[in-house]
Amino acid sequence: MEDVYVIGVGMTKFGKHPDRTAVDLGAEAVLEAIKDAEIDPRRIEAAYCGHVFGGMVTGQKVLAQVGLAGIPLTNVENACSSGATAIREGYLAIRAREHDVVLAFGLEHLTTRFRGALTPGEDDLEAAVGLTMPGIYAMRARRHMEEFGTTREELALIAVKNKRNASLNPYAQFQNPVTLEEVLNSRLIADPLRLYDCSPVSDGAAAVILASGWAVAKLSSRRAVRIAAAALRTGTVEVGLPSMAFEELTHRTAQDAYERAGIGPEDVDFAEVHDCFSIAEVLRVEGLGLYPVGEYPKRVARGEADINGRLPINPSGGLLGKGHPLGATGVAQVVELVRQLRGEAGDRQIARAKVGLAHCRGGKAAGIEGAACTVIIATR
Amino acid sequence: MEDVYVIGVGMTKFGKHPDRTAVDLGAEAVLEAIKDAEIDPRRIEAAYCGHVFGGMVTGQKVLAQVGLAGIPLTNVENACSSGATAIREGYLAIRAREHDVVLAFGLEHLTTRFRGALTPGEDDLEAAVGLTMPGIYAMRARRHMEEFGTTREELALIAVKNKRNASLNPYAQFQNPVTLEEVLNSRLIADPLRLYDCSPVSDGAAAVILASGWAVAKLSSRRAVRIAAAALRTGTVEVGLPSMAFEELTHRTAQDAYERAGIGPEDVDFAEVHDCFSIAEVLRVEGLGLYPVGEYPKRVARGEADINGRLPINPSGGLLGKGHPLGATGVAQVVELVRQLRGEAGDRQIARAKVGLAHCRGGKAAGIEGAACTVIIATR
Repeated sequence: MEDVYVIGVGMTKFGKHPDRTAVDLGAEAVLEAIKDAEIDPRRIEAAYCGHVFGGMVTGQKVLAQVGLAGIPLTNVENACSSGATAIREGYLAIRAREHDVVLAFGLEHLTTRFRGALTPGEDDLEAAVGLTMPGIYAMRARRHMEEFGTTREELALIAVKNKRNASLNPYAQFQNPVTLEEVLNSRLIADPLRLYDCSPVSDGAAAVILASGWAVAKLSSRRAVRIAAAALRTGTVEVGLPSMAFEELTHRTAQDAYERAGIGPEDVDFAEVHDCFSIAEVLRVEGLGLYPVGEYPKRVARGEADINGRLPINPSGGLLGKGHPLGATGVAQVVELVRQLRGEAGDRQIARAKVGLAHCRGGKAAGIEGAACTVIIATR
Repeated sequence: MEDVYVIGVGMTKFGKHPDRTAVDLGAEAVLEAIKDAEIDPRRIEAAYCGHVFGGMVTGQKVLAQVGLAGIPLTNVENACSSGATAIREGYLAIRAREHDVVLAFGLEHLTTRFRGALTPGEDDLEAAVGLTMPGIYAMRARRHMEEFGTTREELALIAVKNKRNASLNPYAQFQNPVTLEEVLNSRLIADPLRLYDCSPVSDGAAAVILASGWAVAKLSSRRAVRIAAAALRTGTVEVGLPSMAFEELTHRTAQDAYERAGIGPEDVDFAEVHDCFSIAEVLRVEGLGLYPVGEYPKRVARGEADINGRLPINPSGGLLGKGHPLGATGVAQVVELVRQLRGEAGDRQIARAKVGLAHCRGGKAAGIEGAACTVIIATR
């Protein structure tokens, strides 16, 4: 089986970009990844673009802007896992020996589409009666509190950690740390979740360049990071049995990824996980098996998930701190894995990191339909 | 390299389905393909869904409806090539040895979105000043007439042929043949193109089940049809130099497909091509090298492209006759290839067909951005 590596990464600053378009942001990220890979752009044989709201042939528009029109490109959509899915499909195209160098990127310009929080679709009857994303995660937070004695303060400390990490990341939307009190006093969104427990509306793009082992040798890419697994799963109801406080879909997807990578959760040195809400980080980390079920919030309070902790979670700032431009999110997670594994993460560098894991989870969490989950494992 | 086969096909009737949804149509096509493959649905390991206007996580909703939620699914979008792109990505996932049995389907419910013709996007400045799809193809028709002496009647005969073929296809939107006079007297849309030169607004879905050589043997699928190539390209301007009467993007994509399949256009026994307009069939067929450049309209007039002709084109009825529900179109083309190659095409059966080719072309044909083209070759 052909090995697959990341040989270049790039991303825009995440945040509000009122004067830019999604395509323009995508082009910036792609050009940065090409520069970082130190390759002739004509080496890129194919591309995958992940986005949710970009509209028809968005990826093609980015290729045209950067002078790469002509190569095969597939736009992919899997809700908040769209960017990670683009990476997975690029990884498969290389493993299929169809291509040796593949560009995978993701982008979104959410501020042109949503003034505030993302509004539910017209046909989303559950959301219409209150089961919006914050509503769902508020219920899951309550359940975790009930089952495991998690406290409101412990959840807030996740937001504190991620915003602190973000303040060390020049690409993050939020550049300032917040205190526990600021989280607890921020505006109530869906009890018990407050504003700082929720990821923001963001614009941004990120890109990675994937290459086969053959291409890595040919291009002399000395900083290549290996993709050991890129697993994808879809799923159904999780606001119900066995418990809405445990994420079965994340667990199953992680099992696929660990099996393919030939490692277990105990081998993971750090992770970027889909913390769309503070409680979401708990569900992800526990579903991935990185921390014992029910214990993650207490471990965060002890500093175990900090950048210099036992098993750092979301060193980039995560969605809570770095921002969450849907299609870009999964790609930006892998950008962070690569920068950490290369030792290029600056003030937020994790010591001795050899195995990084990226987790995305998108779509409707409540209905019987529409969830997608990805787990990508990268190794030095 | 792992060989890839189609072991099951299904599609809904194309047409106007006011009481159905895109997801419902998708589920019907998927269930028919599973039945046709004669496999336990639990054998399906992953899925790809092609659509343009379905909205977020559309493919996942179909999986949930047919009881397949849980497996990996990626939604793909490449404008009118979306369905063909779903097949290509499924083909790559098998070649990568990630999966052995993969479902690829496409769907669209255009009548809920457009009352009449598809309206241009808000940011499409060229269309706003008149360069709509019919406008572009009208210019290309005029150019073909100018360069090669093609006549208005010859173009009309393409519509006559395809609607006649459609009348032999129970899944086609149009079930009645039309006469040359009816085409020539139909409503003027964009001079010289008239209503019957244009593909209709359609709802529908189609599905195929792909399998590795290993799975074909294990499942004892005796009717398997091999996918010899699934090429994808993106492109730019074609309303300009060297000539808007020759389709460079189709030509380049076909070269990729022929090279991968190890055949040339002379080996193709029949083809399904993207005849969104009568002139479009000319541009596709000539770009694919199936008929000499400039001569196709005259060959059609001589009956060479008929079902019993030298090299039949669009035996299913094509987009002009069968209909054009964007995401479903490319998948339905492969459904037709498979039915023809199996000898199951009923009244429209082509004699001794061993190699079939399917061509899709989507996106903006005029701007510098946004075209996608696919060529899939299937062999018995």
